[in-house]
Amino acid sequence: MSSIKVGLFGLGTVGEGIVNVISKARNADAEIKRICVRDASKPRNVNVPKSMITENRSDIFEDPEINLIVEVINDPEAAFEIVSEALSRGISVVSGSKTMIARHLPELIELQRKHNVSLLYDASSCGSIPVIRNLEEYYDNDLLLEVKGILNGSSNFILSRVFDHNESYDQALQTAIDLGFAEADPSFDIEGYDSLYKLIIITVHALGVYVKPNDIFTYGITHISDFDINYAREKRVKIKLVAQVVKISDNRFTMFVMPEFVTKSRYIYSVDDEYNGVVIRGECYDRQFMFGKGAGSLPTASSILSDMVAHHHGYKYDYKKMGYADVPQYTTDVLLKVYIRFLETPILESLPFISIQERYISKSNNYIIGEIKLCDLISHREILDHQDVSLINISRFFEDLDQ
Amino acid sequence: MSSIKVGLFGLGTVGEGIVNVISKARNADAEIKRICVRDASKPRNVNVPKSMITENRSDIFEDPEINLIVEVINDPEAAFEIVSEALSRGISVVSGSKTMIARHLPELIELQRKHNVSLLYDASSCGSIPVIRNLEEYYDNDLLLEVKGILNGSSNFILSRVFDHNESYDQALQTAIDLGFAEADPSFDIEGYDSLYKLIIITVHALGVYVKPNDIFTYGITHISDFDINYAREKRVKIKLVAQVVKISDNRFTMFVMPEFVTKSRYIYSVDDEYNGVVIRGECYDRQFMFGKGAGSLPTASSILSDMVAHHHGYKYDYKKMGYADVPQYTTDVLLKVYIRFLETPILESLPFISIQERYISKSNNYIIGEIKLCDLISHREILDHQDVSLINISRFFEDLDQ
Repeated sequence: MSSIKVGLFGLGTVGEGIVNVISKARNADAEIKRICVRDASKPRNVNVPKSMITENRSDIFEDPEINLIVEVINDPEAAFEIVSEALSRGISVVSGSKTMIARHLPELIELQRKHNVSLLYDASSCGSIPVIRNLEEYYDNDLLLEVKGILNGSSNFILSRVFDHNESYDQALQTAIDLGFAEADPSFDIEGYDSLYKLIIITVHALGVYVKPNDIFTYGITHISDFDINYAREKRVKIKLVAQVVKISDNRFTMFVMPEFVTKSRYIYSVDDEYNGVVIRGECYDRQFMFGKGAGSLPTASSILSDMVAHHHGYKYDYKKMGYADVPQYTTDVLLKVYIRFLETPILESLPFISIQERYISKSNNYIIGEIKLCDLISHREILDHQDVSLINISRFFEDLDQ
Repeated sequence: MSSIKVGLFGLGTVGEGIVNVISKARNADAEIKRICVRDASKPRNVNVPKSMITENRSDIFEDPEINLIVEVINDPEAAFEIVSEALSRGISVVSGSKTMIARHLPELIELQRKHNVSLLYDASSCGSIPVIRNLEEYYDNDLLLEVKGILNGSSNFILSRVFDHNESYDQALQTAIDLGFAEADPSFDIEGYDSLYKLIIITVHALGVYVKPNDIFTYGITHISDFDINYAREKRVKIKLVAQVVKISDNRFTMFVMPEFVTKSRYIYSVDDEYNGVVIRGECYDRQFMFGKGAGSLPTASSILSDMVAHHHGYKYDYKKMGYADVPQYTTDVLLKVYIRFLETPILESLPFISIQERYISKSNNYIIGEIKLCDLISHREILDHQDVSLINISRFFEDLDQ
């Protein structure tokens, strides 16, 4: 069997990690032939010959020796151009670009089928934790009921600083930026989009359904206030940013990204710092928990390496579940129990609660705990975005309103 | 693609689970054609037509419609007969028989190659946790450094009763038997053999090396006394039965099964009750933790179903790592730090400690904490089997004495 000859797009943190990991994994029989970057003159932290680096995509696309393209660039639209061109030219791709994949997965699946090539992307969801491959191959049946987890390391790091180190939210955010666990502009992570894109990819492999980003309720951690934090501490729970896809009946499922009060008895309670943790629940095997480093140069790169070798051995995603006779339908018509904190926004008057369990009123803060439909949270989204409002999920089990 | 037509050997707990799981997984396109049991007249907990059950192996072997044999019987030697006959006849097998597989793996690999058939056995190690498949496919490179875990649910359940419910060892053992978490004769589990056999299988897929059961130090939990339990409680640690395979250098590794003092900061500390947990450590991805139900009718059966479907899609183990140019060597020439409790046995005089860190002497109990080679524990095994002696591992990192 010939060796893996890689054309690499991107030499940022993950690209550098790939160079390092390939040099360590002596038995993988892989080598990087060419690296395409935006700025060839930029200094790099890894030692690669200057001649290997190019700014010209066709130096990779037209090299007949290259039998695999690895794409780990930051710009999702450029990534989509590169990956779709590669697939159209009959070259398989390993990619780590979650945003690009989550936005374009139906087209990318079509391209794989049309050109009989493979696109692997386990690194795109939870870095080194093999979530996608396990959902696709091992949990490859209709027993799966739920995938739920902490998919974003940055926001989890911030919340850990708050709950394990007693920092305020603002302090914690600064610590995360200072230590490199959050970007200088952290909005992609803390507003929940990173979790959202991972959840979309996971859902394709968990239930065989692609749902568009705009159709999914995504509420990040930016609204969390000291009041919410104190409330959680008093109740001896932590606030975590949780992404979940849940079957609520044989033929319906829901999904969303939302902060959640997490009690100590739950597996994800102990997922701290920059770690990710995923709970896979099935009808016969109950809960399985996978835990590890969800991001970072070497963890992500080692996941890319696994995909490279898997491709070399002929592996491709079958997207089997998409072909099932009874693929479940996505619904937002489900009842959630939520905590909503507010000051001036007239929450009670504006939101169509089905029932109210608790009301707290004071001069500085009010909150309501009540039941409301997910679709009503979506349709009243602008209220939830008010400065003085925060939303935290409490429900563990959903009621399917159509049953 | 034709459907999966199963010849099932065994209709005990797991066999019944398989019947149930197949009936639930409507999209798996699998059906059981025939079930071979030792006693066809025995009443069963599942509803299968009488005509499906036979006592005659050839009713399965000679049925041309059966394209997969699933073997889940209790007797390891009979299991080996069945599996090797099936493979020799060119029929692929899914098996859950850890003892049989751990004892006969080299012959079974040879049979798979010779007859170009597949034997899958993910259920044999940690039930529903996909350890084998992940080691074989995802951690399929030489970055892997260590696999360590709680692989036996029965002994873990007993130790959990002791440390989380303050029961004595004897009470805990009785509770485990009463609740069905341990067999009436629990020796296979509590003496560490169940963990040992799983560890042997894991090591083949982790490092590409098969080590015979007799060459591996295996010390169960039967010697643990109230004194040891109190010692652990005072130190705020738990005692867990830990199986581990660890690379101690680029070309050497060691493995053993031994009770261990586990501190709160370790992932396996929280693996309680009948659960299993496995930590996979690698050079680039640090520690990954997988947690779930390691045994039981439905969890094990759902793992069997995954293997059935994987086989149907052409999956087989490649045993890639066995073909690496630099497969690591098994050694027991490593230094461990251990706690040995004793009363009358002259431990200090009998065992060749390299160094002693602590000595405790009293009328009712004595203990030593010291460093000793694993090979010396093996060669002095009979002393460690004395009634008044118990051995508990403390070391987390090993020194390779040949380096």
